[in-house]
Amino acid sequence: MKRIAILGSTGSIGRSTLSVVESYPDRFEVATLAAGKNTELALEQALRWKPRVVSVADESDADALRARLRAAGLPEIEVVHGAAGTVRVATHPEVDFVVSAIVGVSGLEATYEAVKAGKTVGLANKECLVVAGELITAESHRQGKPLLPIDSEHNAVHQCLRGGRLDEDEKVDEVDRIWLTASGGPFLKTPKSEFASITVEQALNHPTWKMGKRITIDSATLMNKGFEVIEACRLFHMPPERVQVIVHPQSTIHSMVEFVDGSILAQFSVTDMRLPILYALTYPERIPSDLRFSVMDLRHLDFYPPDMAKFPCLRLAYEAATAGGAQTIALNAADEVAVAAFLERRVGFDDIPRIIEQVMTATPAAHLESIHEVLVLDTEARLLASEMVEQRRQKGSPIRAIS
Amino acid sequence: MKRIAILGSTGSIGRSTLSVVESYPDRFEVATLAAGKNTELALEQALRWKPRVVSVADESDADALRARLRAAGLPEIEVVHGAAGTVRVATHPEVDFVVSAIVGVSGLEATYEAVKAGKTVGLANKECLVVAGELITAESHRQGKPLLPIDSEHNAVHQCLRGGRLDEDEKVDEVDRIWLTASGGPFLKTPKSEFASITVEQALNHPTWKMGKRITIDSATLMNKGFEVIEACRLFHMPPERVQVIVHPQSTIHSMVEFVDGSILAQFSVTDMRLPILYALTYPERIPSDLRFSVMDLRHLDFYPPDMAKFPCLRLAYEAATAGGAQTIALNAADEVAVAAFLERRVGFDDIPRIIEQVMTATPAAHLESIHEVLVLDTEARLLASEMVEQRRQKGSPIRAIS
Repeated sequence: MKRIAILGSTGSIGRSTLSVVESYPDRFEVATLAAGKNTELALEQALRWKPRVVSVADESDADALRARLRAAGLPEIEVVHGAAGTVRVATHPEVDFVVSAIVGVSGLEATYEAVKAGKTVGLANKECLVVAGELITAESHRQGKPLLPIDSEHNAVHQCLRGGRLDEDEKVDEVDRIWLTASGGPFLKTPKSEFASITVEQALNHPTWKMGKRITIDSATLMNKGFEVIEACRLFHMPPERVQVIVHPQSTIHSMVEFVDGSILAQFSVTDMRLPILYALTYPERIPSDLRFSVMDLRHLDFYPPDMAKFPCLRLAYEAATAGGAQTIALNAADEVAVAAFLERRVGFDDIPRIIEQVMTATPAAHLESIHEVLVLDTEARLLASEMVEQRRQKGSPIRAIS
Repeated sequence: MKRIAILGSTGSIGRSTLSVVESYPDRFEVATLAAGKNTELALEQALRWKPRVVSVADESDADALRARLRAAGLPEIEVVHGAAGTVRVATHPEVDFVVSAIVGVSGLEATYEAVKAGKTVGLANKECLVVAGELITAESHRQGKPLLPIDSEHNAVHQCLRGGRLDEDEKVDEVDRIWLTASGGPFLKTPKSEFASITVEQALNHPTWKMGKRITIDSATLMNKGFEVIEACRLFHMPPERVQVIVHPQSTIHSMVEFVDGSILAQFSVTDMRLPILYALTYPERIPSDLRFSVMDLRHLDFYPPDMAKFPCLRLAYEAATAGGAQTIALNAADEVAVAAFLERRVGFDDIPRIIEQVMTATPAAHLESIHEVLVLDTEARLLASEMVEQRRQKGSPIRAIS
């Protein structure tokens, strides 16, 4: 019986994880849960799963939740809150496997502590690798426990890598390069000249996946693929020039690995997050599921080289991946601020990479030694990005003139 | 240093193997060579590679070769001949790895003896698995040495299977099914009604690969894919219903494995036989090669379900795979005879499956206990097939009426 902690239990990945746990009651049990502000769903999950510990964001919510669990005859469930509460959930001694699925930098500390506590961690939180990848993978390596990617691309890479061997240091060997597939987003065929007038509505209309707003915009700018390049570099110990992106509009093939002998392995499956979750939870085993892709219905797959000139965010991500440290933090923080400003119609679509590049240029190189340092630099980069947004807004941008 | 025996050194796979050996002189050496009637090339190879033993088909050719090697100052090279000679080459004590690449049933005995002598065997000979797969895989399992497939489809499957685990018995586990890709041959879009009038010239015009005549016709009837289904069943211990065929005209993806969890791995690479040879020779290691596929040039891949009604040879192969034993021998022998008759314009293209089905129906079920029994049954099936050809020829077929 694998005892699971879910960081971000009320979010999309958290709920999918609980759905997987529900399908295999003889294999998995919910040990601990960390939610945020959605205390109604946190209560419901606590009642259903009877975890040892449940954590919510605020102290007052924790008090209310504690009272309601007592009233429901479950006083033994420990209710905690805040950052310390999430760490408690992540490092509980009766946890074997931690699903790290809190969106944003607030998931960083608890994930790092889980790794440090020797837990096997399934990573669905992008920031863990993008802004603190060097720290977290180094700690995971010290602990000798795997970091298992729970997103379709890196999970696909993880599966394909099994076609080769690891070196003595348990690092990827025999690999020439990693190919991440990208849907190309809604503007794959839009001319560069029209990028300045792209509206929020157009950018939110992603062709393949239904996702949150920030990740949808990040998919439209290809920044999301850029983040994935950085994640792949950190997770699989690859230099950026050996992690490449290929546009594949159907998003059927989730990613590929090219080995040194010239053989390439590609992975595909239904586009259902329960599959990478199940893979991570059972690794190195595979167990039967009903999440089937019909190979007989494959039909047509298309592939194109990405247009780096049209999608400067992808180029910026490569630059940040190469520089490492502070630059990936600046990249992520500036993107989050710039995307929020675009969604609020304060800057144009083509301002997003401009703001990011300005923040990156203004951020001095630094090697980060702790999650605390990461978070400080993240805050600084956000402030810088907000200033850049304000400057750009005062200059005016075509999108605001139109809208 | 891996010491290699090549059975069929003057054929296409044999020459490709020597080209691989030539590229990695610090890894591989040629220990022994078995050729057939092409004694000029056998001499050239013996002079170049200085093997311990070289074998040719006929005694008189062996005498001549021995004299020429002595004259060239290489009297230490042992020259042998015939079936016993090939066995000597395959089982020589200074051989680590045997490449089994003799076309037809004449490669059977030596390959079986190599497995029995505990050699690691790379299989390029289709008959070993189609007509004697049960015997050879059982012996390989007893010896605990791998049988490594040297053809693009099974080699691809072997690579994809690494994404799952083997059971305690070293047999494939965690696999739902194997997907063999088929180019579909030149008649993918030809209506069934025109099959009777297909000419030899049309059938020899294969869209993707340039190969020998029999295998080209077998590709046009999809019998070649049928043989591969049987090979996959034997090699990977899978029932026929879990080995499926999907038409993929570009032949880019060489095959796929669908795991029980719903994940699918696919393999692709340049269409160069040196790649599966290199893979087999270095397994479980991969070493760098310049045999590269450009992922950026993937472009378009198409997939269609196969039409079993239009290609009855594929259906017959599944029936033979299910029945096993004598039926796969009948299938292979009848196909070889029927294809030869078609190439001689003695029967029509659509007579090929008719003749095979007649021979299969006339062949009683039998469990074969030895390679000798296999060869006896093979001879009987060929005689039966020749009779069927003669009957059909006397009845007359549309193709002869036209040509």
